[in-house]
Amino acid sequence: MNTTASPWRLAARAERMNPSAIREILKVTERPGILNFAGGLPSPETFPVDAMRAACARVLAEDSARPALQYATSEGLPELRAWVAAELGRQGAAVSPDQVLITTGSQQGLDLVAKVLIDQGAPVLVETPTYLGALQAFAPMQPRIDSAASDDEGVQPDALAAQLARLAGQGQMPRFMYALPNFQNPTGRSMPEARRQAVLAVCRAHGLPIVEDNPYGELWFEQPPPAPLLARWPEGVIYLGSFSKILAPGLRLGYVIAPPALYPKLLQAKQAADLHTPGFNQRVVMEVLQDGFLDRHVPAIRARYHAQRDAMLAALSQRLDGLGVQWNQPAGGMFLWLRLPQTLDAQALLPQAVDAGMAYVPGAPFYARTPERHTLRLSFATAAPAQIDAGMAALGQVLRQALKLKA
Amino acid sequence: MNTTASPWRLAARAERMNPSAIREILKVTERPGILNFAGGLPSPETFPVDAMRAACARVLAEDSARPALQYATSEGLPELRAWVAAELGRQGAAVSPDQVLITTGSQQGLDLVAKVLIDQGAPVLVETPTYLGALQAFAPMQPRIDSAASDDEGVQPDALAAQLARLAGQGQMPRFMYALPNFQNPTGRSMPEARRQAVLAVCRAHGLPIVEDNPYGELWFEQPPPAPLLARWPEGVIYLGSFSKILAPGLRLGYVIAPPALYPKLLQAKQAADLHTPGFNQRVVMEVLQDGFLDRHVPAIRARYHAQRDAMLAALSQRLDGLGVQWNQPAGGMFLWLRLPQTLDAQALLPQAVDAGMAYVPGAPFYARTPERHTLRLSFATAAPAQIDAGMAALGQVLRQALKLKA
Repeated sequence: MNTTASPWRLAARAERMNPSAIREILKVTERPGILNFAGGLPSPETFPVDAMRAACARVLAEDSARPALQYATSEGLPELRAWVAAELGRQGAAVSPDQVLITTGSQQGLDLVAKVLIDQGAPVLVETPTYLGALQAFAPMQPRIDSAASDDEGVQPDALAAQLARLAGQGQMPRFMYALPNFQNPTGRSMPEARRQAVLAVCRAHGLPIVEDNPYGELWFEQPPPAPLLARWPEGVIYLGSFSKILAPGLRLGYVIAPPALYPKLLQAKQAADLHTPGFNQRVVMEVLQDGFLDRHVPAIRARYHAQRDAMLAALSQRLDGLGVQWNQPAGGMFLWLRLPQTLDAQALLPQAVDAGMAYVPGAPFYARTPERHTLRLSFATAAPAQIDAGMAALGQVLRQALKLKA
Repeated sequence: MNTTASPWRLAARAERMNPSAIREILKVTERPGILNFAGGLPSPETFPVDAMRAACARVLAEDSARPALQYATSEGLPELRAWVAAELGRQGAAVSPDQVLITTGSQQGLDLVAKVLIDQGAPVLVETPTYLGALQAFAPMQPRIDSAASDDEGVQPDALAAQLARLAGQGQMPRFMYALPNFQNPTGRSMPEARRQAVLAVCRAHGLPIVEDNPYGELWFEQPPPAPLLARWPEGVIYLGSFSKILAPGLRLGYVIAPPALYPKLLQAKQAADLHTPGFNQRVVMEVLQDGFLDRHVPAIRARYHAQRDAMLAALSQRLDGLGVQWNQPAGGMFLWLRLPQTLDAQALLPQAVDAGMAYVPGAPFYARTPERHTLRLSFATAAPAQIDAGMAALGQVLRQALKLKA
């Protein structure tokens, strides 16, 4: 009899699964009253509550409620798939609704891509640093993650060409490169037009397909970003999109656009994963999207984040002056990236920052390989300008103290 | 340059992914006007539309809307986790809310279980026949599926003991047994109390843990089913539940209850899969569940399905009399299982049935190993008694014709 010992045996992939570093880090930051620049949350002030309320009432009207509450197709609501295809068309990418798979947030798109494309030990290439949620989504399929040299404009094409030649020589050609060309999480950086062309040329020459993730592209401040990579190489790009940053993340609504050859595999993985994305949510969002709602709604989000980014840049200039800290000037999105003096470790300093009343996310967990421990991510999405100034003042004080101790 | 050939290379698991057999079969049955007993859909007449409408309005009230639309915790809404734990308590299983993980339908629970417990080539044991969606959820992790000999009361304990001894001797002890003790999909059969005890004793003796799937347990007709397996072996059972059959499937809301040692691994897999289940949906359902709503709502579903089951039993007796067809008398749920004369192939006959105006699902796809081709599944959930009689009459006519041709 074996009644006391645990009868469970974990899969090898699960031995490596642990509560994410960032999750543990964020627990430190959840103290009440803290000025929190650590989260990846959009501002709840931007959620279209009135439109949602009206949309729910329409979807739950007597003649439409029951289909909305029944099982639905795994591909997604046809009207929503058509909307997505038309939206990408406006951005210069010719997409058929048949290529659109509605997902339970774009995080699920990453899970499906991993299932369909990653064998155990297969190499996958990511930006340096990259979105932590993608590393988590890929991890269960046990890839070997390689990190592509990147600068303020994203992946560096010459270094990429050299790396791909080296990897191909080792029989380690990556299955795909994962890239966020617009207002990347965590850095806020974007790929300019020339960089997109140069990176695409290298990828096409080496036959390296791309998984393009674009949750933030609509949140531009002064001008829309260049056309997506998808528009330039339709058969070589899987594109992930999301409604989380332009409507609300609590709906968990995203999409994958895939080349026709890959679509049936992703669809099958989707069906096995959760049958389909909640049909109710798809219909509510489809109602919200009527009559060009986003054309009125998204400019308000852009204006808010733009003002808050400006407040953060001003506060950083004033409060971190003379400390040897560098930061970028994101042209959209929610995040800004700081490089402290190399002697400082952002993760080690976080408890002191929290004691001083503010929180950030250390940069280290976003690196697939060697972390740059002196980096950190700040979100400017949720705090008002006055809070931003107070938070940066607190950060300046912590850094000043830490540099004194080092000196 | 490599610009024309596809740059994508599929993972080995994806080579085996194809549109499911049943999906293709169901396409045949989607002809308008057909009497459809093939689907696995609950009756839309049972969806609580008024309660949903009121709940949405409360959740989207000005003071609560924004948290409902924001990112949420991966574990799920605390109030809903507490509700699930209390509900299992009423069924005799002592469950802490900390053991409850809210999932995007119970299909996602199967996906998470597979990720955490199945290595490539690892054996997994299922009932004969079993839920096709589970086979699809497990497949991407590439298990070796073994099928446990089963009769009208579920898995046979003596055969199970012999099979486990044999598998253990081969170093092929299954990672777990997947079982649906209540009104199983596809057969509608249930495990009586004595069978539960006998199977549990074999599992405990061999250290074989169980994944217990219970989407239909609340849909009993005359008396509630015996206590869940979870109540009898808390550390050896993962339990999957769902709101799809008692509220509405379009919400995609289910849950996993896991032993504390496994919970963090499932949580990590959940976070990687879709970050969290839509918080909006969780809050709407929590609102619907207030004030004992299910105590008033579920009896009406039971009564409807009970009457429709009775109509189907009566129609089968009358319309299939003398054809050598056998069927069971499910004590709850949505499905009934037919065994045609062994010379008939239910899949081959389906086009003729559709031509005659009715549709069913052939039993073969539900078998993990050797299919019994003379079996088929009928749903009594969606058709009214008069339609049921007409459908069984059409089936009788098709079978009579087929048997004539064989004779």
